[in-house]
Amino acid sequence: MSTPDVILNNHSGQAHRAFPLQTWLLRQLSQTVGAAPVRLALKSGAEVSPPGVDPLATIVVRDWPTLLKLIADPEMAFGEAYADGRIEVEGDLAGALAAIYQAWEGSGTGLYEWLTSKCLNWLQDNTRDGSRNNIHRHYDLGNDFYELWLDPELVYTCAYFASPGDSLETAQKSKLDYVCRKLQLQPGERVVEAGCGWGALALHMAENYGVSVRAYNISHEQIAWARRRAASRGLSHRVEFIENDYRSIEGKYDVFVSVGMLEHVGAAHYADFGRIIHRAVGNAGRGLLHFIGRSYKGEFSRWIRKRIFPGAYAPTLGEAVSVLQPHRFAVLDVENLRVHYARTLECWLERFDREAAQVSAKYDPWFTRAWRLYLAGSIAAFRAGTLQLFQITFGGPKSKQVSWTRAPLYASATDSAIPGAPGASTWKPATF
Amino acid sequence: MSTPDVILNNHSGQAHRAFPLQTWLLRQLSQTVGAAPVRLALKSGAEVSPPGVDPLATIVVRDWPTLLKLIADPEMAFGEAYADGRIEVEGDLAGALAAIYQAWEGSGTGLYEWLTSKCLNWLQDNTRDGSRNNIHRHYDLGNDFYELWLDPELVYTCAYFASPGDSLETAQKSKLDYVCRKLQLQPGERVVEAGCGWGALALHMAENYGVSVRAYNISHEQIAWARRRAASRGLSHRVEFIENDYRSIEGKYDVFVSVGMLEHVGAAHYADFGRIIHRAVGNAGRGLLHFIGRSYKGEFSRWIRKRIFPGAYAPTLGEAVSVLQPHRFAVLDVENLRVHYARTLECWLERFDREAAQVSAKYDPWFTRAWRLYLAGSIAAFRAGTLQLFQITFGGPKSKQVSWTRAPLYASATDSAIPGAPGASTWKPATF
Repeated sequence: MSTPDVILNNHSGQAHRAFPLQTWLLRQLSQTVGAAPVRLALKSGAEVSPPGVDPLATIVVRDWPTLLKLIADPEMAFGEAYADGRIEVEGDLAGALAAIYQAWEGSGTGLYEWLTSKCLNWLQDNTRDGSRNNIHRHYDLGNDFYELWLDPELVYTCAYFASPGDSLETAQKSKLDYVCRKLQLQPGERVVEAGCGWGALALHMAENYGVSVRAYNISHEQIAWARRRAASRGLSHRVEFIENDYRSIEGKYDVFVSVGMLEHVGAAHYADFGRIIHRAVGNAGRGLLHFIGRSYKGEFSRWIRKRIFPGAYAPTLGEAVSVLQPHRFAVLDVENLRVHYARTLECWLERFDREAAQVSAKYDPWFTRAWRLYLAGSIAAFRAGTLQLFQITFGGPKSKQVSWTRAPLYASATDSAIPGAPGASTWKPATF
Repeated sequence: MSTPDVILNNHSGQAHRAFPLQTWLLRQLSQTVGAAPVRLALKSGAEVSPPGVDPLATIVVRDWPTLLKLIADPEMAFGEAYADGRIEVEGDLAGALAAIYQAWEGSGTGLYEWLTSKCLNWLQDNTRDGSRNNIHRHYDLGNDFYELWLDPELVYTCAYFASPGDSLETAQKSKLDYVCRKLQLQPGERVVEAGCGWGALALHMAENYGVSVRAYNISHEQIAWARRRAASRGLSHRVEFIENDYRSIEGKYDVFVSVGMLEHVGAAHYADFGRIIHRAVGNAGRGLLHFIGRSYKGEFSRWIRKRIFPGAYAPTLGEAVSVLQPHRFAVLDVENLRVHYARTLECWLERFDREAAQVSAKYDPWFTRAWRLYLAGSIAAFRAGTLQLFQITFGGPKSKQVSWTRAPLYASATDSAIPGAPGASTWKPATF
């Protein structure tokens, strides 16, 4: 990557060359952000600005040691320093990060980065015990924390904004229904869900599509919340929430669905995951996988894996399809909803920022800043295309549920009587 | 595979056991068709019927040597014998083949099958010279032959039946437009097409979307026809048909499109193909690949490769995505149109059968029977799910053309003013 032809300013904007070593170091760091329109500054003085463009943001580094760490290992040091308050970003954080991601070729090619990355993977392997620990660290932070900034149903995955102006609540409901319609759920069918979060999809399916659902999750907090919600909505007889690993799924089902869990399976366990899907739905079954993916092989940043999502891995489409191929499941449809995840995360960050004081009171300012960076960084990654959001619909070799076209998914509200949607009296709950 | 519990009849339907060796051999053959509801018969006497079901068809084998060959190598011998008239199929040929494909686990696991398959691959490798020969053998059979049974625009790929009752003509026009809309073509853009057939898509794009098209094909007959059609429609200044290999694509374009050519590239050349796509459209470009694929790795039958489609290979979705991944193209959408290809082929076979006498007069009865089997067998493969038809839409890492939802693709006619569709006076042809 070439060094941008930088202009050196002091922090007030007046050009000068009073800090030769500082500016030299900032120049080194500026190689990392490449051509991104971002200004770099040291609190004590020097600045490096991209020439000829209005910077989206200024990254202000508080001290020398932080600057040195950023130069040595920007991927890890940026997250650590931001969470510690040793970096401040003035301006549009998500926009600046998106520009950096687009300009950045990625680090992690050095031996140190490679070693620390492998080390994290080894420490965070998604064995049964490993998964329980990894999931606990993220999803058991406290339901009241997530209630602060998610929608009322606590849907913690990419929403579907049928119209870009839709509210988050509307978009999450649209997503739940969109998944059901892609699956062409029929009254009386049996559905198994792997990684059900707080249960919103399981409850939506049972309530609106007349199916029976068995939903697995290893987050204790989420399962407890989901069971209470099922009881209060009178759905406990049709939705069974099971606190267990996807590897413990038992029984036979018509439909397999997993929204936002493949990221936590880990590539080393894809063959197992495929076998479990096939064991659950057989050759006549069908299903949907919704997950964060990539256009090219790569790991989540070491900082994200260390601090936010231990054990997480976003597969390429090819890797995801390798889950299905050994069992001859046919891919029927793949949709990339990455722009919807950027929008979803914007909604989350806006709410999170509004509740920042409460978050800091419950945890501490470090936690608040770390999560702010995670949310803004995710917006950036989906905007820049570093991350993708795939929904794969698939069917077994003997599945009869192949739709003629996708048009019914987009029929206007009046036309969209869902073929399988039950009148209250026309279906009976399936039994396991 | 288990032997079906066969009932032995003579050809008139009366049960008896007068042909012990014949019936024993038919039993051996019946293991190949597994549980498929198909009756097997020798012209001279014995029959083997599946128990308890009405057979879809009776496969009548004319003589002992043919029966022995079928037992030894059903994949190759069936095609050879059918084309030679040493097998007749009474009843629903496509239906019977679909049932057999669903029941059959596939041959090709023996050493002989493996060797002959590898040998075919080696002889038919899609090098530049190999491709020219392979394509010549299929697509240069004579435009008047294809005019007998294709639609008037000679679109020789899967159509899109917006409604299952649409005519083939309507469905082919819908497909051309569907591809353009998936690509979100904008007036003035430059499009390169790899493997353009008789040019219908290139002409449709230029005529209705105001783009300039350079279209490559190595079939001399097709290119000649396409150029005449461009001239007669007054489009020669905006559509350039080039008789050359996809490897010779030159120039820079906004959009890459290939409909029904990936099958002729060959897995050994996917990396090259990806490089050529990237060279053509760069990081800001986008494109669409439309191709016959599979849910699991496998070769076309040796008979199809020997007699109909030399050098053809249908990739899995994972293999197809491997074309795009090295260049960080993001997969935006994948649609499986396999039911549409079954319907398209039904239309083709119906027309082909109507013109069979003319085909036999132009070629010979062997050719007519071979092509009838190829068309019926393809219907069967798409019905049974042995083959899939994928359309992949993709965009480079710097592409700005990401649509918000897929809904505009399915807007009703009155709503569907295509954003990029030009008024005659509002755009100027792009120049290369």
